[in-house]
Amino acid sequence: MRVVHSPRHALHDGGMELHRGELVPCFEMPARADFILQAVRQAGLEVSEPQAFGLESLWGVHDAGFVEFLRTAHAQWRAIGKQGFMLPSGFPARGMRRDHLPSGINGQMGYYAFDAGTPIVQGTWDAAFAAAQCALTAAAWVAEGERSAYALCRPPGHHAGHSTYGGYCFLNNAALAAQHLRERGCARVAVLDVDYHHGNGTQDIFWERADVLVVSLHGTPETEYPYFLGYADERGAGAGEGFTHNFPLPRGTTWAQYSAALDSALDAVARFGPDALVVSLGVDTYVGDPISAFALEREHFPLMGRRLAQLRLPTVFVQEGGYAVEDLGLNVAGVLEGFDAGR
Amino acid sequence: MRVVHSPRHALHDGGMELHRGELVPCFEMPARADFILQAVRQAGLEVSEPQAFGLESLWGVHDAGFVEFLRTAHAQWRAIGKQGFMLPSGFPARGMRRDHLPSGINGQMGYYAFDAGTPIVQGTWDAAFAAAQCALTAAAWVAEGERSAYALCRPPGHHAGHSTYGGYCFLNNAALAAQHLRERGCARVAVLDVDYHHGNGTQDIFWERADVLVVSLHGTPETEYPYFLGYADERGAGAGEGFTHNFPLPRGTTWAQYSAALDSALDAVARFGPDALVVSLGVDTYVGDPISAFALEREHFPLMGRRLAQLRLPTVFVQEGGYAVEDLGLNVAGVLEGFDAGR
Ligand SMILES: [Zn+2]
Ligand SMILES: [Zn+2]
Repeated sequence: MRVVHSPRHALHDGGMELHRGELVPCFEMPARADFILQAVRQAGLEVSEPQAFGLESLWGVHDAGFVEFLRTAHAQWRAIGKQGFMLPSGFPARGMRRDHLPSGINGQMGYYAFDAGTPIVQGTWDAAFAAAQCALTAAAWVAEGERSAYALCRPPGHHAGHSTYGGYCFLNNAALAAQHLRERGCARVAVLDVDYHHGNGTQDIFWERADVLVVSLHGTPETEYPYFLGYADERGAGAGEGFTHNFPLPRGTTWAQYSAALDSALDAVARFGPDALVVSLGVDTYVGDPISAFALEREHFPLMGRRLAQLRLPTVFVQEGGYAVEDLGLNVAGVLEGFDAGR
Repeated sequence: MRVVHSPRHALHDGGMELHRGELVPCFEMPARADFILQAVRQAGLEVSEPQAFGLESLWGVHDAGFVEFLRTAHAQWRAIGKQGFMLPSGFPARGMRRDHLPSGINGQMGYYAFDAGTPIVQGTWDAAFAAAQCALTAAAWVAEGERSAYALCRPPGHHAGHSTYGGYCFLNNAALAAQHLRERGCARVAVLDVDYHHGNGTQDIFWERADVLVVSLHGTPETEYPYFLGYADERGAGAGEGFTHNFPLPRGTTWAQYSAALDSALDAVARFGPDALVVSLGVDTYVGDPISAFALEREHFPLMGRRLAQLRLPTVFVQEGGYAVEDLGLNVAGVLEGFDAGR
């Protein structure tokens, strides 16, 4: 399996997040990609840099005004004399209007964001855009005949919606890969999200579409981030009704419980009959993850890869979360090796 | 003019807020009330402690589930082994559901809050409930025949909605005073909010009611907190249509500009023909305020008080914001003395 990765991910660094009442360095840190890169190289996988896709490659998934905000936000921040990382301080939550974009940068941050844990720094746009290009490159390889590819994206993407960011995510890499496959001849594409957290952004983007199935297994939003999306009763709307499936699972979920839900998720994908699969590959389901609460052990990740391979679909893996930094690479490589062995 | 104040305000202390990317001690601090208390005593005003009103006195203004959340939130926090102040980390903002209250405490915080700047500490509920009792006591005095009264409330209240908190506010003291006046024989009550920030909570609470007029002068939400409410096109809905008036003003607004808008606001109050007036008295319009951007000088606050007196209405003053701590007391006392001199 070929791997695509950009060193530009490291430009997204130095932000802090509000976590359980403390302002701490982001769990989503550059070292994550370094450990993954080391592990996939040790596994013998070939790593390439991404092809260049233009800004317009984002517009099938994201609102153009939102993209322009992300592209220019930190420059606007510096232009008013501020420096360092940007975090929003007020949100269009319950009781507030959602229909008006304020003109000031603080209000605009709150308008587009849904948490206070996703800082924008000077290099965020360059890193997020490079990650998007990695996902698009992997999708292009698969569209051109590769049976599978892995986009080592950082920052991750699955929380980013049509015009929203949060959960360490700015551009939705997996959604971009799915959309690219759609535009390159795949009539139906399935996105399977195995990150610990609900892929609320991916769900948002394809909510009313019947051509992209979105299936997510995740910690229940009753207790887990992002709290306000990812419940089992969310099934899509309009033309997309029935094309979203959520499998919320309780804290402490073991491999036995997880793999049963995974079977149901894979059944839903198989019934959809897609031409290609995008896997939002977060490994924060690992028992050692510092911000998550499932109980998957290292040996379960190759088993997960084997199950995914049994769908026998052209498959794009897109990196999402995973914050047990030193074990991260081995867990990711475990999924990819299991997939290669299982097909 | 009689003053009501509770020393229990000091129990709300020790929280931090996310402000311009930094976690800093809250600008809304106990010393604020101390400086105001000193100034009103020096002005010769008599200060009393509040009467006791039960929990049910809140239910005309706030959702009972929201009140129960506020009352028990920090105990729930401690019960899961956490300590210190509570700040939410994810919100039901754009793209998210607002119809489901998560069962976990982190999700519940985000459900009820709209910013990451309003920490709950162990003493928050006791302080907020005491502030509510101050406002209710001042309203009771006026209902019983006093021509005016001042509730030295802390924490403030005007950002707190029917079931939302934020902007340093938990229970809406001014709305509670207005509702109390309604229940004690005033057929129509006007709330005039002169705090620098839009009184979004008060507007939310009375949005569909024709018996309580809500008029707010404030820094435009285009650039100022709370960003997502307080625009001029918000006029109320249903039976309340036409009973909300907003006067958003630009950064740098001087007394000349402010007093012209104040005249329009007072005209709106006079046209409504209320039986009583509640003034949400924030003095963060002061040029020296550290988080605001109007240019009112000390000598303008007595002038404001005189204008308010010209409405010739039974009036309850309720303390809201003001963060230039050492000047705060004199500015508040200036409004009250101007009011007393002007009637
Ligand atoms: Zn995750
Ligand atoms: Zn204020």
